[in-house]
Amino acid sequence: MGGTIGIVGVGNMGGGMAGRLRDRGWQVQVCDLVASRVVACVKHGARAAATPAEAAAGAEALIVGVVDAAEMHEVLFGAMGAAAALAPGAAVLLCPTVAPRDVERIAAALADRGLAAIDAPMSGGPARARDGSMSLMVACADAVFEARRDLLETLSSKVFRVGTRPGDGARTKLVNNLLAGINLAGAAEALALAERLGLDAGRTLDVIEQSSGQSWIGSDRMRRALAGDYAPRAHVTLLQKDTRLALEAALAAGFRPSLGPAAHEAFNRAVAAGDAELDDAALLRLFRKQ
Amino acid sequence: MGGTIGIVGVGNMGGGMAGRLRDRGWQVQVCDLVASRVVACVKHGARAAATPAEAAAGAEALIVGVVDAAEMHEVLFGAMGAAAALAPGAAVLLCPTVAPRDVERIAAALADRGLAAIDAPMSGGPARARDGSMSLMVACADAVFEARRDLLETLSSKVFRVGTRPGDGARTKLVNNLLAGINLAGAAEALALAERLGLDAGRTLDVIEQSSGQSWIGSDRMRRALAGDYAPRAHVTLLQKDTRLALEAALAAGFRPSLGPAAHEAFNRAVAAGDAELDDAALLRLFRKQ
Repeated sequence: MGGTIGIVGVGNMGGGMAGRLRDRGWQVQVCDLVASRVVACVKHGARAAATPAEAAAGAEALIVGVVDAAEMHEVLFGAMGAAAALAPGAAVLLCPTVAPRDVERIAAALADRGLAAIDAPMSGGPARARDGSMSLMVACADAVFEARRDLLETLSSKVFRVGTRPGDGARTKLVNNLLAGINLAGAAEALALAERLGLDAGRTLDVIEQSSGQSWIGSDRMRRALAGDYAPRAHVTLLQKDTRLALEAALAAGFRPSLGPAAHEAFNRAVAAGDAELDDAALLRLFRKQ
Repeated sequence: MGGTIGIVGVGNMGGGMAGRLRDRGWQVQVCDLVASRVVACVKHGARAAATPAEAAAGAEALIVGVVDAAEMHEVLFGAMGAAAALAPGAAVLLCPTVAPRDVERIAAALADRGLAAIDAPMSGGPARARDGSMSLMVACADAVFEARRDLLETLSSKVFRVGTRPGDGARTKLVNNLLAGINLAGAAEALALAERLGLDAGRTLDVIEQSSGQSWIGSDRMRRALAGDYAPRAHVTLLQKDTRLALEAALAAGFRPSLGPAAHEAFNRAVAAGDAELDDAALLRLFRKQ
């Protein structure tokens, strides 16, 4: 186990993966526009690369850890892009949450160059990227999966093989995140209603956690909100973006959602209210005004 | 421990409570319009009562386990009603999920007769009523709570003291159930969308259960739905009713909900589609048509 892996984008998630791979004996070459992130990785034994092409040179696989489809395209196919520097047969892990059609387009462009795309959105946050306990929703051809099993299982103890078509990872992630957005907005609505009805919100949340209204994101975010803690772990803009992408995918498939648009609208209103830079726990503040 | 308790309405939940009390050495007097339910309790050592008044005679507390506010009023204050048969100082546990204002009215009428109301909606289902592990959301005066602590803690190992005003139990239950309705409709929408996008719904649910979209009711109901099992444990009409009551309470308090109305509308549409007698897991079938 343990060849050379390039990583472009070593922020919260990419940085966590770099640390995880180093711990397990892999060579890592990292590139990021933010120098301090690269320095942090170098302290853990990674090699600094000045460009995506340099991060990709000699690597058996490249992890793309940037934030959106435009950046993903740029680091692969732009000037000093990684794709041209990878050897034929190398794999490219596409980790950001993007539209399924963007994954499909990039996978096709990689295939034209003899490179294998692995659609692999992540779930779980930085701490779990760092210790390898995050979830990976992996969609790629069977042969590609088998060839990269060591790498994938080093990155994640919870690899979900959601399909063989690149794009199905993105679809699965968007479906999950749409539901997370609904459950979060629903929890904020319920607790704001509890307060309006004269109930103690903390005690109501105690009951909900032991009753049929329980959800992971509802507890996680509403505990913070009730403590007045809106320091961003997950910015309001993240689920604003992901619920929008999910609704666009639904629309393109002729599906008419009912609750998703109401949740997306709540994130839009939170941004309009000036809460874009806060944790999405801030939805409670929004619903308190309703 | 273990005086005499009357129970009017020994269906799923009332019957479970009767069995639990008998197991723990309490005397139980039961009354129900459905004779077979009474017979089942008698087999476990309960005494059969022909009327609510007879169930109440000599009891230190009466548990009302009927289905709605109209029935609750009738068994207490109708012909052969229980209230006139209870000794001053006896307690009445109001267990159905009803509107807060109905709890307040009944509590006031009981107080006029020197009886103590305990607003005590339940959560957890028949099996957990039977083994004492259900949740009780208790709102009553402090002195009443202390006087009946033995009874309440025999009925439930999870007693939540949600307030001192009768009505706050009902408010807490409605807030929880509104959120349960949102989480359930959201899960059905997400899985129906997953199928429309060409994903395997079971695999998508595996991912959701380990990711940010997790909720208790989403897993519970969607596992059944994916197995094609719509045998009713919780009829579609139950959350249809509870989400309506919650929205009415919200409206009366000047609160404008966003996701709740979309969830309630989904239950309405399921009933209109002929699914009233099915388990509410049937919401998946509804969203598949969207």
